[in-house]
Amino acid sequence: MAIPLVSPSDPAAPAGLTERGPASQAKRDAIVNAAAAIFLEQGYWAASIDEIARRANVSKATVYSHFDNKHALFGAIVGQRCQRTLSSILADMSDRPVGEALTAVGRQFLDVLMMPGSLPLYRLVLAEAPRFPELGRIFYEAGPDRVASALAQYLEQLHKRGVLDVPDPRLAAEQFFGAVLGQIHVRMLLGVASEPPPADERERVVANVVRLFTLGVSRRSA
Amino acid sequence: MAIPLVSPSDPAAPAGLTERGPASQAKRDAIVNAAAAIFLEQGYWAASIDEIARRANVSKATVYSHFDNKHALFGAIVGQRCQRTLSSILADMSDRPVGEALTAVGRQFLDVLMMPGSLPLYRLVLAEAPRFPELGRIFYEAGPDRVASALAQYLEQLHKRGVLDVPDPRLAAEQFFGAVLGQIHVRMLLGVASEPPPADERERVVANVVRLFTLGVSRRSA
Repeated sequence: MAIPLVSPSDPAAPAGLTERGPASQAKRDAIVNAAAAIFLEQGYWAASIDEIARRANVSKATVYSHFDNKHALFGAIVGQRCQRTLSSILADMSDRPVGEALTAVGRQFLDVLMMPGSLPLYRLVLAEAPRFPELGRIFYEAGPDRVASALAQYLEQLHKRGVLDVPDPRLAAEQFFGAVLGQIHVRMLLGVASEPPPADERERVVANVVRLFTLGVSRRSA
Repeated sequence: MAIPLVSPSDPAAPAGLTERGPASQAKRDAIVNAAAAIFLEQGYWAASIDEIARRANVSKATVYSHFDNKHALFGAIVGQRCQRTLSSILADMSDRPVGEALTAVGRQFLDVLMMPGSLPLYRLVLAEAPRFPELGRIFYEAGPDRVASALAQYLEQLHKRGVLDVPDPRLAAEQFFGAVLGQIHVRMLLGVASEPPPADERERVVANVVRLFTLGVSRRSA
């Protein structure tokens, strides 16, 4: 199972690492992709750094030059996926109308969750979390928490500028993402839906939440 | 592990069965509680009807007089939990103000999800669903789907009466529950939060969503 998690043009790598140049970045991407595939095939705890290095066609030392340990590698997989949503949110901090910005964020969020490999990755961490809460924490911090905190920052600025009425931006951000998910994710997790909803359905979902939020937290409604 | 899933006073039993009288109802509750405990201890597929009957102190024939098979028993466990939310929703179809009714629904929903045993039950079905999608479907229909469809009915009536502007009540219902959950559930599933949020925190969460919805779908905002 080879799931392409990051493409060379992906803006997901931490800024510090890009200084090492594109060759190093390509190796990093190869390691992350190999690790994701092996984690999903064998489970997190059975996967070895040796095998990840072999699959990525790099030395074990190269793996360790990028990642301190398996935990860090797992965090990077989740983090790279969520980085896409974050980039989109940050880009939207500009002067785009609120509705447009929120629509972009909602779309990106669904896209990341519906990417091939995202669901199995989430299943993996859910299965391991009861025994290994550290893995659950890494996933949470690299994924849901980062995304919610980025949206919260955006909402807080709008609140300060008097555009929206969002006294608790973090709560509002979590509720925004929760509303976008609705029961889409649970249907897929439970195997009730075998495919992600088609593009027009996703658009409808996001548009509905954005309408709800812009009306629900607009100053004129307060 | 003995998790009391239903109490004798629980209004969760399907109406038809109460005709059999309180003794039969008590046996049914005992079977459901025993099954839930054994499913969580041993996993769904390892659990046997023999052992469930033994633990519930009834004959195997009694188990089969209430439930056709293990799938039906599993559906009943989930269904009984969700019935609480449904009863509350149905009670609120009356003339209570919308905000009050939605608050009650949001509260009940969180209560059911935070009940002891709900999280392990959900983990169980998530772990089994990839191999046994039928179990996922039973859970979905007895749980998330029923709850969303009950709230959708309520919202549809309000829409028809011109109280709210909810052209797609099913979508709105799913988004309501999604917003109430926010990241509460994911934090618990990932082991990031070991305890459900305290009562005052839940109240704040629900109040925020209800405010969002009543403003977001009110006629004056349309």
